[in-house]
Amino acid sequence: MKLATYKDGSRDGQLVVVSRDLASAHYATHAAHHLRQALDDWNFIAPQLQDLYAALNAERARHAFPFDPRQCMAPLPRAGHWALAQAWEHGLESGPAADPGFRLGAGDGLCGPCDPLVLGAEQLEMDFGAGLAVVVGDLPQRASPAQALDGVRLVLLANAVQLHAGALSPVQRQPVTAFGPVAVTPDELGDAWAQGRLGLTLQTSWNGRRVGIADADEDMRWPFGELLAHLCATRPLRAGSIVGAGTVRQRGVENGARRDWPKGYHAIADKRAFEVQQDGQARTAFLRLGDSVRIEMKGNDGHSVFGAIEQEVVGLPASEPAGAVRPRALPVAEAAPDGGDGTGLQ
Amino acid sequence: MKLATYKDGSRDGQLVVVSRDLASAHYATHAAHHLRQALDDWNFIAPQLQDLYAALNAERARHAFPFDPRQCMAPLPRAGHWALAQAWEHGLESGPAADPGFRLGAGDGLCGPCDPLVLGAEQLEMDFGAGLAVVVGDLPQRASPAQALDGVRLVLLANAVQLHAGALSPVQRQPVTAFGPVAVTPDELGDAWAQGRLGLTLQTSWNGRRVGIADADEDMRWPFGELLAHLCATRPLRAGSIVGAGTVRQRGVENGARRDWPKGYHAIADKRAFEVQQDGQARTAFLRLGDSVRIEMKGNDGHSVFGAIEQEVVGLPASEPAGAVRPRALPVAEAAPDGGDGTGLQ
Repeated sequence: MKLATYKDGSRDGQLVVVSRDLASAHYATHAAHHLRQALDDWNFIAPQLQDLYAALNAERARHAFPFDPRQCMAPLPRAGHWALAQAWEHGLESGPAADPGFRLGAGDGLCGPCDPLVLGAEQLEMDFGAGLAVVVGDLPQRASPAQALDGVRLVLLANAVQLHAGALSPVQRQPVTAFGPVAVTPDELGDAWAQGRLGLTLQTSWNGRRVGIADADEDMRWPFGELLAHLCATRPLRAGSIVGAGTVRQRGVENGARRDWPKGYHAIADKRAFEVQQDGQARTAFLRLGDSVRIEMKGNDGHSVFGAIEQEVVGLPASEPAGAVRPRALPVAEAAPDGGDGTGLQ
Repeated sequence: MKLATYKDGSRDGQLVVVSRDLASAHYATHAAHHLRQALDDWNFIAPQLQDLYAALNAERARHAFPFDPRQCMAPLPRAGHWALAQAWEHGLESGPAADPGFRLGAGDGLCGPCDPLVLGAEQLEMDFGAGLAVVVGDLPQRASPAQALDGVRLVLLANAVQLHAGALSPVQRQPVTAFGPVAVTPDELGDAWAQGRLGLTLQTSWNGRRVGIADADEDMRWPFGELLAHLCATRPLRAGSIVGAGTVRQRGVENGARRDWPKGYHAIADKRAFEVQQDGQARTAFLRLGDSVRIEMKGNDGHSVFGAIEQEVVGLPASEPAGAVRPRALPVAEAAPDGGDGTGLQ
């Protein structure tokens, strides 16, 4: 099934179930207000959401409304654990990686798919980073890769934003991550989801120009089962942990003395690394104010699986009063009326 | 005021208000079920908690009960953002630090003050790390240190556990953090809380022996306002973020050609660094199964401010079934006897 979180002015938003074709949605209030609640008690709540999903796809859901990705927060706007690896290789690695290169991110302000990328100054060298992540249930310490993979509840599309300016400390370089509109259960992905890899095509566009198209199961050195087991080596993972596999990369092809990446890139830093390898110098500049980024993955049927991440780079409001917090939510759509019978099903 | 979170089988526990002397407590259900709720809407909920706190201290609260730290979870068991710096210096630094050395931790399974420290194998080289942390309200991007300090809602006592085994990746070395029983509002700390430092004495005991006693406002290179402003440089912080200042250290004293640390240590790694500096070799071993750690801070009136962290190192249950999650609360050991002379140092 497909789940999303609608903006309602609150910090956790409202859980909605979204139809397979992303055309319609329905509030899941009868089962859970927030996705965190559903993850906390998944075995009890997921079947109720699944029933609603079936009704929605069959156009039997009574209070369905058109799904609007611009109303979405991150599917899980606040996560207690947001760990990001670098599981894909671009062929420029200096040798076999000793470990998946995990770093932890801040899970307190995860962004929706159309939230602006707030950039204080272009000198901070903001970059996008398109990839995949999973949300897990409770996993015990020392879970095996297979056991950990069984604990995957949802798959997500992610844009892990990076700042590359040298003056920043490591913690300052990871300002925010945005997620695709819907979270998708693994069963929904069919055969494309196998051994912890997702065999679908990721497309990244920058200012309307396609800059990367990648088979996401190729050149993925660390599949999700191994990523999760790495984290479980010394501690259990709690339900609602989000684990990202990093920026999707492809190893490129040898072309005489030169290496080419005909399928492009999903982070500007990778493009710059290609340029250094090819010409000795990076030429492509990082994100500028007004730039746009679009990230999407399509299923074998040509339909968007997660919906698209579409973000625009905006400046920090200069007039922001000291002590004020930038409003998180854009104008919110009218709340759809709730099912009179408490389920909304017919 | 003083707040705690009681275990009730749920992931977020139950918010309780605790009397100033830590003798009695009262459920805060009328105002908020969880501390997260209170932090999300602090200006509305805090006054209600404050009223209850006043009644509790005056012994006018109708349904008060004796406060038991062993029933406590971490005050905020799940935090979207748990960032840990190293703000104190021990005099062995190679030079002035360029930044506060922040690393992010997992906020999904923060431990209560008497939860066991689960150690898979002694070869993992488990260490304690006694220090302080704060919980903040919403802070805007580019908040100044003074502005950020105004956003501090609660002060916490922390034991940030580390694993030092060389084979572990950085993310595997931070398995868990435990927090003292009660979270304390800054106004409660009076003059001891000044310019983002807490001028009280931290006491750490290991297997019943006092190993460290430190003035927590000395040798703190980065006060909390600066720590918070560092994090806000490139992003806002959301309400409920926890920011730790790291292990409390003191710079020690020159003693001829040698440097001594007469006030001891609050992490075994620091003790080992002292030994290397003094004798060329680390002699003190890391935590062993059955070891106990006690961390406490007393006010100028001699009373415990946050209650004590009292943890015992236990093994991972060998019989744990695959897929099961370890119960969080195991039986708690007897408290280690405290040093009678107020220092306990040898």
